[in-house]
Amino acid sequence: MSDTAPPAPAFPPDDGLLPAIAQDAATGEVLMMAYMNAESYAETLATGRAVYFSRSRKKLWRKGEESGNVQLVQAIYLDCDLDTILLRVDQVGGAACHEGYKSCFFRQVAPEGLKIVGERVFDPAEVYKKK
Amino acid sequence: MSDTAPPAPAFPPDDGLLPAIAQDAATGEVLMMAYMNAESYAETLATGRAVYFSRSRKKLWRKGEESGNVQLVQAIYLDCDLDTILLRVDQVGGAACHEGYKSCFFRQVAPEGLKIVGERVFDPAEVYKKK
Repeated sequence: MSDTAPPAPAFPPDDGLLPAIAQDAATGEVLMMAYMNAESYAETLATGRAVYFSRSRKKLWRKGEESGNVQLVQAIYLDCDLDTILLRVDQVGGAACHEGYKSCFFRQVAPEGLKIVGERVFDPAEVYKKK
Repeated sequence: MSDTAPPAPAFPPDDGLLPAIAQDAATGEVLMMAYMNAESYAETLATGRAVYFSRSRKKLWRKGEESGNVQLVQAIYLDCDLDTILLRVDQVGGAACHEGYKSCFFRQVAPEGLKIVGERVFDPAEVYKKK
């Protein structure tokens, strides 16, 4: 047994959530940012798939559980303050965003407003069908 | 005058803060994550330099004001929910992290603990000298 546990992210005592950034392992593109609690982080480590905590639904969010677009985790990094998590992932299906874009950051701030610059990979109406 | 203002990030009514990710414009490396309020976002747009809000110091944080390592903003993106900001920046001095590393995410989670994988650019003791 080791006498020191590997340092874990410093999940805060209040809501227990830390931001987690998902970056495309191949291209470096930032795909999305979501939140993790200790349980979702542990499940991510254990399964190798990104698991977040949904603040709106107040439960674990196994990314891709509905769309099939899971994120296969290639590497995890912690920042200097241990309060932000960075995942390098292979994004199955090619799109991280529920709106069908590769990245959630598909709009650029421009003088005239927001300009769509991202690549749309799927039609959300097709993927998130009512069952 | 335009009849619609460009959509702004949805700064929340409680603490007014949104996460902002800084990514190296040239390499795509994720450099850091910090927080912005409406004022710091507006100053970032106006000046072209990244300005955050320091949660610990509770005031605007003009990145690089002490170290000189300012971030020149090349592009700004908003995510699908308008609640995360992504900056592509030129990092002056080559290091975003106050610990002297290029990226704050200089440690990778490994089975045996955290492994330093980042590149150290400067010695913090030299840069943040007491005045």
